[in-house]
Amino acid sequence: MSETFSDLDAHLEAGAAARLADFVALLSIPSISALPEHRPDLEATAAFIAERMRHAGLEHVEVAPTDGPPVVYGDWLRAPRAPTVLVYAHYDVQPVDPLDLWVKPPFEPRVEEGRVYARGAADDKSHVAMHLAAVEAWLSVRQALPINLRFLFEGEEESGSENLERWVEAHREQLAADLAVVSDTEFLDGNLPAITSSLRGMMYAQVDVRGPDLDLHSGGFGGVVRNPADALARILASLHDEEGRVAIAGFYDAVQEPGTRIREEVARLPFDEEAYRQRIGVPELAGEAGWSPLERRGLRPTCDVNGLWGGFQGEGAKTIIPAHVHAKVSCRLVPDQDPERIFELFRRHVIDHAPSGVEVEVHLINTGRPSVTATHHPAVEAAAGVIEAVFGQRPYLIFEGGSVPVTAVFDKTLGLPVVLLGFMNPDCQAHAPNESLVLDNFEQGIRVICRYWEALAEAPLAGQGASGSASAA
Amino acid sequence: MSETFSDLDAHLEAGAAARLADFVALLSIPSISALPEHRPDLEATAAFIAERMRHAGLEHVEVAPTDGPPVVYGDWLRAPRAPTVLVYAHYDVQPVDPLDLWVKPPFEPRVEEGRVYARGAADDKSHVAMHLAAVEAWLSVRQALPINLRFLFEGEEESGSENLERWVEAHREQLAADLAVVSDTEFLDGNLPAITSSLRGMMYAQVDVRGPDLDLHSGGFGGVVRNPADALARILASLHDEEGRVAIAGFYDAVQEPGTRIREEVARLPFDEEAYRQRIGVPELAGEAGWSPLERRGLRPTCDVNGLWGGFQGEGAKTIIPAHVHAKVSCRLVPDQDPERIFELFRRHVIDHAPSGVEVEVHLINTGRPSVTATHHPAVEAAAGVIEAVFGQRPYLIFEGGSVPVTAVFDKTLGLPVVLLGFMNPDCQAHAPNESLVLDNFEQGIRVICRYWEALAEAPLAGQGASGSASAA
Repeated sequence: MSETFSDLDAHLEAGAAARLADFVALLSIPSISALPEHRPDLEATAAFIAERMRHAGLEHVEVAPTDGPPVVYGDWLRAPRAPTVLVYAHYDVQPVDPLDLWVKPPFEPRVEEGRVYARGAADDKSHVAMHLAAVEAWLSVRQALPINLRFLFEGEEESGSENLERWVEAHREQLAADLAVVSDTEFLDGNLPAITSSLRGMMYAQVDVRGPDLDLHSGGFGGVVRNPADALARILASLHDEEGRVAIAGFYDAVQEPGTRIREEVARLPFDEEAYRQRIGVPELAGEAGWSPLERRGLRPTCDVNGLWGGFQGEGAKTIIPAHVHAKVSCRLVPDQDPERIFELFRRHVIDHAPSGVEVEVHLINTGRPSVTATHHPAVEAAAGVIEAVFGQRPYLIFEGGSVPVTAVFDKTLGLPVVLLGFMNPDCQAHAPNESLVLDNFEQGIRVICRYWEALAEAPLAGQGASGSASAA
Repeated sequence: MSETFSDLDAHLEAGAAARLADFVALLSIPSISALPEHRPDLEATAAFIAERMRHAGLEHVEVAPTDGPPVVYGDWLRAPRAPTVLVYAHYDVQPVDPLDLWVKPPFEPRVEEGRVYARGAADDKSHVAMHLAAVEAWLSVRQALPINLRFLFEGEEESGSENLERWVEAHREQLAADLAVVSDTEFLDGNLPAITSSLRGMMYAQVDVRGPDLDLHSGGFGGVVRNPADALARILASLHDEEGRVAIAGFYDAVQEPGTRIREEVARLPFDEEAYRQRIGVPELAGEAGWSPLERRGLRPTCDVNGLWGGFQGEGAKTIIPAHVHAKVSCRLVPDQDPERIFELFRRHVIDHAPSGVEVEVHLINTGRPSVTATHHPAVEAAAGVIEAVFGQRPYLIFEGGSVPVTAVFDKTLGLPVVLLGFMNPDCQAHAPNESLVLDNFEQGIRVICRYWEALAEAPLAGQGASGSASAA
C-alpha cells in the first residue's frame, strides 16, 4: 500500500476529542427498537445521523420512512470510474433490562479506562460513528472520495429487520453497488483483529402444548390426564441425542460439512477454552460431539430453547396441572440449510414426539438465512491488508455464531458480495448490562475504514458481482 | 334408626330463608388466605363465625391467634357419658384469578337454579355454615346435644395449614375427643352421595437449574454450553416411564397395593369416562398403565409438574440461552409413602438425571401425609346410615386424590379416628371460576349432620381410639 494517509491521520488526531463528544451524544439517545415508547428516540437518532451525514458532505441525504423505524440514506457518487460500495450499520439498540445490573445508567455514557460504557457503545452505534468519521475526514481533507459510497443506516436490526428487507427490495436501483460492507461484527476473543467470514441463519418458533380447558387440581386429577408440562419436557428433551446432535430428522441433510482446510484454520485460532469457560460461568463447555467449541458455534447448526413457561411460577406451592405450557425454540443454521424447510422439519418432529393426551401447535416467528463470504474475494483480501497496516497484525478469519439478517438480503436481493468489517471488542457485552467499546478499536477502526476506501479503489472489484458471495439460498 | 327428627326438621324448614341469607353474608367476605392484603377479611370472617357460634349456644368460643390466620374454637361438653367429636372445616378460600372468567364477581353471591355461586360456596364455607346450622337447631329446639362437640374452624387450609398444625400440637388437651369429623370433601361424579375413605398425601418441591452467569446470546454461544432448559426438560421427562409409571427409584417401595376387594369396590362405582373426559376438555384420559382412572386418582401415587419457567416468555423473539430455569413438581402419595422419604428419592433422581454442564438444586416446599380411614369403623357405618336415611340411597365409598393436611394431623398428633363427612357437588368448580354449591346438598347435608350426632351417641365409639384409623406414618 503505497498511499500515504498522513493528512487524514492528522485531521483525525486533531478531531479526537470532538469526535468522542459527538459519539457520546449519539449514545445518549435511547433508541430501543423493541419498545414502542421509544419510537420518538429512533426518529431523533435518525435525524441526528442525517444531520452529521450532511455536515460531512454526503449528498441525497434522507430519513426514509418505513412501516417501522426510518432508514437513513446518503451517498457520494462523484468517482465515475471507481467502484460503488454500499455501507451498512444499525442505529437501534437492545433493551436494557435487567437495569439494576448496570453500574451507571445505560444512556448516560461514561468514559473509563480506555472504554466507553453505554447501551449501543459497541452494538452498533460504534460502527455508525466510525463510518461517519471516516467519510467526514476524506471529504474535509481531500474534498473527494476514491470510490463511490452509499450509506444505509437501519433502526430495526435488533427487532428482526423486517421493514428494511421490504425497503431494500423497493429501492434496488437506489442501492446499486459493486460491494456491500456490513459493519456489525466483533474481533476474536482477546480483542485480536479479525474478519468474520460467515454468519449463521435462524429459524425461531414457538411451541404451544394444551391439555385440559382450565388448570386442574393436581389432587383430584393427578394420574388421570397427561400433564402438558410433561408433554413439553418430552418434546424438548427429544430435540438432541445423547451426543449433543440435533435429533430432528433431516436437520443435517443440506449442511455443508466444513472441509479440512477450514477446520485447520479454526484449530489455529488462539482460544483459551478455560478462560472462556470461566468468563461465561459454566461448570463445563458442552455441545455436539466431535467438534471443538469454536467449530460448534461457527460452523455447526444448533437448536436452543430460548424460554419456557406455564402453570404456577410464584413463591410457595399451588397444586395445579397447568392447562397449557409454552416454549420458544430457535435453530442457528449454516449453509445450505433453508430456514423454512428447517421449520417444517422442526414442526413435524415436535408433532411426532408429542405424547398422546395433549394438543400441540408450532408457530414460526421469524427466519434469517445463513451467509458466508468468499474468503478469497479481493475485497476481503483488501480489508485484511488495511487491518494489518493499522493494527500491526494480520486479522484472523473467523466464523460467527450470530446472525445479521441484512447480510443475506444484500446477497440475495441485491446480488452483492458482502464484506463483514467490524471492530467490536468481544468482551463488549452487547445485549447485556454494562456494554462497552474499547476506544482504541474505535479510533483504529476509523483509520482502517479510511484506508479501505482507497484500497478498494485499487482492488479488482469490477465483474465480481454476486458470484463473489456464496448464498445459502 | 328409631329416633324421630320432626322437631329439628320443622325448625330447619322454618329457618331456610334466614339461613341462606346468613350463608350469603359469610360468602361475601373475601377471606383469601394466600394474599396478605386479605388478612383483615380473614379476621372478619373468624369474628363472624365466632358470633354465630355464641348465638347458637356454644361455649368457650374464642378467636385464637396463630402466626397465620386465627383459629375459631367453640364447644358444647354437657353430655358427660357420651362420646366427644372434634369437628373441622375451613373458612379461608382460594384466590379468584382468572377474574375475567367469572360470570358475576366472586364475592357477590348469587342464587340461581338451585345453586349458590361464589368463591367458597363449596370449598369450604358450605361446611362451616352447615355445621353451625345443625348445632343451632339442636340447641335451639332441644337445648342440648346427644354428644359432646368441639368445633375447630381454620383459616389457612388453602395455604398449607402450617400454623394449624402447631396450634393443634399446643392444644392437645383442649382438643381431646373420641373422633374427628373433617368436612371438606365431595360426593361422587353425578352428585351421588358418597363418603371419602382416603386422601392422598403430598410432597411439593422446586427444581432450579443454573447454567451461565447471565443469559447468553444464542448466536454467539449456541452450541458451546448446555442449555439449562434442555437440562430441565431431560430431568422432567425422566420422571415417568413409557407406561406412565413414576420412574423415581424406590418411589413405589412403600406403596400398599390395593387388594382385590378395594379394586372391585372402585370398579363398581358409577363413572361415565367419556362424560368426564369431555367435562375436563382433554383429547383422552391418560396415566399409569394397568389402572382405571378412578384407581389412578384415588389409589395410586402420582407425580406432576405444577409449573415451569425460565428465559424469554414475551411476544416475538429474543435469542437467548437462559441463565436459569425452574420447575415446581409435586407428588401425591398413598399409604405407606413417607413424604420426607419421597422428597429424598426425588432429589436423588433429579440430581442423577441432570446432564453435565449445569448446576441443579432441589428444594422441599411442603409435605402432607396420606391418610386412610377404616371403612368398617362404626363411625363410618353410622355416617353411611344417616346419609342413606336423608338422601334415599346408600353412599358410595370413594378414594379421593386430593389432600386435606389436617386429617393426618388429627390422626397422628391427636390419635383420633377420622370420618371425612362432606357434601360438595363434584362439579362445584372449587379453586376455579364460578364455584357453586347445589343448595339441596346444603340443606340435606345439615339434616345428615343433625342425625349423625344422634347416631354417634348410639354407636360403640368408646375404646376405638387411634386404632380406628390407619395412619400412614
